[in-house]
Amino acid sequence: MAVRLALLGCGTVGAQVVRLLHEQADDLTARVGAPVELAGVAVRRPDRVRAVSLDRDLLTTDALGLLKRPDVDAVVEVVGGIEPARGWLVEALRQGKDVVTANKALLAEDGGALHDAAVAGGADLYFEAAVAGGIPLLRPLRESLHGDRITRVTGIVNGTTNFILSAMDATGAGFTEALEEATELGYAEADPTADVDGFDAAAKAAILASLAFHTRVTAAEVYREGISEVTSADVASAREMGCVIKLLCLAERVDGAVAVRVHPAMIPRQHPLAAVGGAYNAVFVEADAAGQLMFYGAGAGGSPTASAVLGDIVAVARTVVARRAGGNGLRQTGLEAYAELPVRPIGEVVTRYHVRLDVADRPGVLATVASVFARHGVSIATVHQTGRSSDATLVIVTHRAPDSALTATVAELRHMEIVRSVASVVRVEGETPAG
Amino acid sequence: MAVRLALLGCGTVGAQVVRLLHEQADDLTARVGAPVELAGVAVRRPDRVRAVSLDRDLLTTDALGLLKRPDVDAVVEVVGGIEPARGWLVEALRQGKDVVTANKALLAEDGGALHDAAVAGGADLYFEAAVAGGIPLLRPLRESLHGDRITRVTGIVNGTTNFILSAMDATGAGFTEALEEATELGYAEADPTADVDGFDAAAKAAILASLAFHTRVTAAEVYREGISEVTSADVASAREMGCVIKLLCLAERVDGAVAVRVHPAMIPRQHPLAAVGGAYNAVFVEADAAGQLMFYGAGAGGSPTASAVLGDIVAVARTVVARRAGGNGLRQTGLEAYAELPVRPIGEVVTRYHVRLDVADRPGVLATVASVFARHGVSIATVHQTGRSSDATLVIVTHRAPDSALTATVAELRHMEIVRSVASVVRVEGETPAG
Repeated sequence: MAVRLALLGCGTVGAQVVRLLHEQADDLTARVGAPVELAGVAVRRPDRVRAVSLDRDLLTTDALGLLKRPDVDAVVEVVGGIEPARGWLVEALRQGKDVVTANKALLAEDGGALHDAAVAGGADLYFEAAVAGGIPLLRPLRESLHGDRITRVTGIVNGTTNFILSAMDATGAGFTEALEEATELGYAEADPTADVDGFDAAAKAAILASLAFHTRVTAAEVYREGISEVTSADVASAREMGCVIKLLCLAERVDGAVAVRVHPAMIPRQHPLAAVGGAYNAVFVEADAAGQLMFYGAGAGGSPTASAVLGDIVAVARTVVARRAGGNGLRQTGLEAYAELPVRPIGEVVTRYHVRLDVADRPGVLATVASVFARHGVSIATVHQTGRSSDATLVIVTHRAPDSALTATVAELRHMEIVRSVASVVRVEGETPAG
Repeated sequence: MAVRLALLGCGTVGAQVVRLLHEQADDLTARVGAPVELAGVAVRRPDRVRAVSLDRDLLTTDALGLLKRPDVDAVVEVVGGIEPARGWLVEALRQGKDVVTANKALLAEDGGALHDAAVAGGADLYFEAAVAGGIPLLRPLRESLHGDRITRVTGIVNGTTNFILSAMDATGAGFTEALEEATELGYAEADPTADVDGFDAAAKAAILASLAFHTRVTAAEVYREGISEVTSADVASAREMGCVIKLLCLAERVDGAVAVRVHPAMIPRQHPLAAVGGAYNAVFVEADAAGQLMFYGAGAGGSPTASAVLGDIVAVARTVVARRAGGNGLRQTGLEAYAELPVRPIGEVVTRYHVRLDVADRPGVLATVASVFARHGVSIATVHQTGRSSDATLVIVTHRAPDSALTATVAELRHMEIVRSVASVVRVEGETPAG
């Protein structure tokens, strides 16, 4: 007896899911132990021309009616957005229907609601496609490493910003020029705000942190800075330090708390994440026993995302088949929040700063500037001074210090008469792995 | 009610497993839904001093007696080698006891016996630790990608040889010198044959191919060349081409067959595998829909390997708990061989060659040499000639051709009077990923 799916949405990803279900039908039957079929496809506009051929009779505009049908075993959601997706999925899970979703916005805003509904209904929740597209990441995090203790997750999880920063690094282009190129090539959307300002990465960071630390973290709790203020001078400065600038999402376990943030950062060129170019994604995981791990691949695109959805569909379909055979499957959502660690504010996060100052070129400037860092308890690792006729540039890299101390230092520098301008402030992350 | 394990073996990995079970006890109970306990530990010499404190009453020399005990739910094997491990695990699986093993030699030689016993007994078989140590790799391959179609797996799966080749690349050292350094630093064993000659990598290649292509492949079916003939001149030659030499394991799907091989190869420095240095491991996976993926991490060591074993223990323990609650779990071994693709001999594998020849420096040599390639149907991509007074060096890189044609070409060159010597032959692999 076939496993029957309700597919909600049939856009870029949905069309690829339909194609893969069709093309891989024989292999899927072998892997699942039963055929996997579409019971129906809910779309807003049934008459729209689609990238995939689909039996007209399968289409409906009534998603809720479709997912409630008794012949539907599981629900696959590729619509995105908070509502109406949340209402549909909560209803499906409460009815005991397993759900596969690629909806990062919903998971990051209200993953708890989905988890609770899954527990209430005795259903499974899978969402491999929601973070880092086609990279198998959530399953390793929630299963392979569940006998280990994850200490930090550092990711490049937004392809648009990585394309822009890679272009700036490769060509010396400024942000605006690189964004234009990304838009022309289809790597950036017409309104790039969600990518460029780090909202997309923050949603993914929330999901990663929830999984890695068994704690509910929402997107709103993620500290966030985008890349629009990264200049070609910053990129050049990073290069001089043997670094490259990446938009990182960082989720760390610190003294019984969790810190989650998204911001541009310099990382050493020898770091495995530094080699992740173009629109690729990668997630670097540090765990007590496993040590350093990295997962790399295509972070977006219809086909890679559909691959991740298919992986989840097979897992769900196998559960359905096992349940029919008298089993009850293995319930887990990956969002079990038994640890409930507090989320630490950015001010308490310990990091390093790279600060570039335009200063008056007169005796004693360096001593005065250094005393400001010292007063805030920030230790300086290196100083590089380049003088010109009437003014000079100071590039200072600090040791690790609380972000609030670094912020206060920079704030004080901005108000000093001898500091013409604070040209840039970029965090420095990532030790080079031993090897 | 606790889930009780029989641990077979308590060496480097076993001691770390015991440590993690103890240290992570509270988290494990939360993740599994029941405590996870050791029922007993089978060792050869109970009186030996161990790296971990262990209740003396748990130790036994009777592995078979231990695993048959009714209070044992699952068996964890970290002994290694073919026998007696095979007999123990087959017996445990036939009795319906789930097995976690890190035994790559056994899986590569006779994984089929374990799979058959697991099916006969209705037990689960997990072996994440058997390939690439702590890198979560098998679970993504067997679960996350099971809705996709894997076309090729390219891995750096032996840390010793990667350390040696990385050192040769970094310092210009020869093979013997780099091997000595690896031995001094503990990266190579006193008898390095299994690593240096590619036997270890071939066993892992067999397991990876079996998983990726749902076909039984044994280590004996893997074409194998080691790294002992790689010279510093080869490494320099690779560098001139913008390449680095790595010992690769390659498993490819080709026209309804599977080709599996282990040999040194040049890959472009921009390839994600090229940046994998020192004793690290990484596996690059290409799939129809997911595109290019890479998994990176520590490939060996007690602690990373134990992390992988623990991940499997949690999976097994969850299944035990679910079964007690009336479920029957989800049986799969990952070694389902439903595809049964034939294994293609190396001669039919299509690849590229980098050939360096010392030739007599006289007119017409290049034309004569080129005609040999042409006669065997091998197309030349680039030729680089450096002349000296009486002789010259020709570096030829071919286009893709069957390995048998390349072998025949080289054999003929070796017998030509104008060819003083065939200084080296190294395969060239790996397109640089787009992006």
